[in-house]
Amino acid sequence: MARDPATASFKFNHTMLRVKDPKVSLKFYTEVLGMEHIETYDFPSFTLYFLAFDHSNGAESTEVKKANRTAREGILELTHNKGTENDANFKYANGNSDPGRGFGHIAISVDDIQAACARFEQLGVPFQKRLTDGTMKHIAFIKDPDDYWIEIISSRRNPGEA
Amino acid sequence: MARDPATASFKFNHTMLRVKDPKVSLKFYTEVLGMEHIETYDFPSFTLYFLAFDHSNGAESTEVKKANRTAREGILELTHNKGTENDANFKYANGNSDPGRGFGHIAISVDDIQAACARFEQLGVPFQKRLTDGTMKHIAFIKDPDDYWIEIISSRRNPGEA
Repeated sequence: MARDPATASFKFNHTMLRVKDPKVSLKFYTEVLGMEHIETYDFPSFTLYFLAFDHSNGAESTEVKKANRTAREGILELTHNKGTENDANFKYANGNSDPGRGFGHIAISVDDIQAACARFEQLGVPFQKRLTDGTMKHIAFIKDPDDYWIEIISSRRNPGEA
Repeated sequence: MARDPATASFKFNHTMLRVKDPKVSLKFYTEVLGMEHIETYDFPSFTLYFLAFDHSNGAESTEVKKANRTAREGILELTHNKGTENDANFKYANGNSDPGRGFGHIAISVDDIQAACARFEQLGVPFQKRLTDGTMKHIAFIKDPDDYWIEIISSRRNPGEA
């Protein structure tokens, strides 16, 4: 079926995940994954953090990215409900076990998956599945600070690889 | 902090959501939202469906999109665990209520949000929040067939709007 012309401008702009402690999550997403923190919206009881990968090779300022934030894909929104970081027992569901199963993961594609996974090991990032685990040797899963799964895949795919 | 050069190739490739009935979900994401179904991986107990918006204005074939699927952002992966569609009581958690709170929503940005929401109404899409509900008149939330929330935002943002 041909695409309805009414949807011609539609973009998959962002995915939102709630996080317990924004300091820890922002450090992870910017330093470990290399995303840029481009915008923050602070409300009385919660704060929204918008992150994305820079694909301009540093040419675009954060201000330009901020202005274009809703006109692109690949944005990650992290929501912090204030106070959760101070509750030792507080934990969000990561979507991968009952009750609460639904959302599965986000995925990052990388040019050199061996090098990327070796670096995650070196940085002490926890793995849900290493490249060497199981039968699917071409994908890995790491865990973010809230235990959300992040699939690591190669951007240089081989035919037949999921 | 400057981006670690080791992350230079990283892209936010996809978000994965489990769906109860792929026929219903594929119809929704292609016909209502206008995404293209670009690839399927079938395994004995589950099937993976990859969808994305075409930004080539129809110039790129599905084959080209398939070849480039891991080298771009904005992909949606739908996972179907076979058999769930036949269980009347089966339902995934959408991440927005306890237990199972964590993932919040995906978001689609559109050039004309009034027209987009009027079309969703006309198509009978359920709303979690209409443009006219609450205090934030510039955003809406619709619900996909599994009740996952999909935020609708304008790609033509006004300064100060979240």
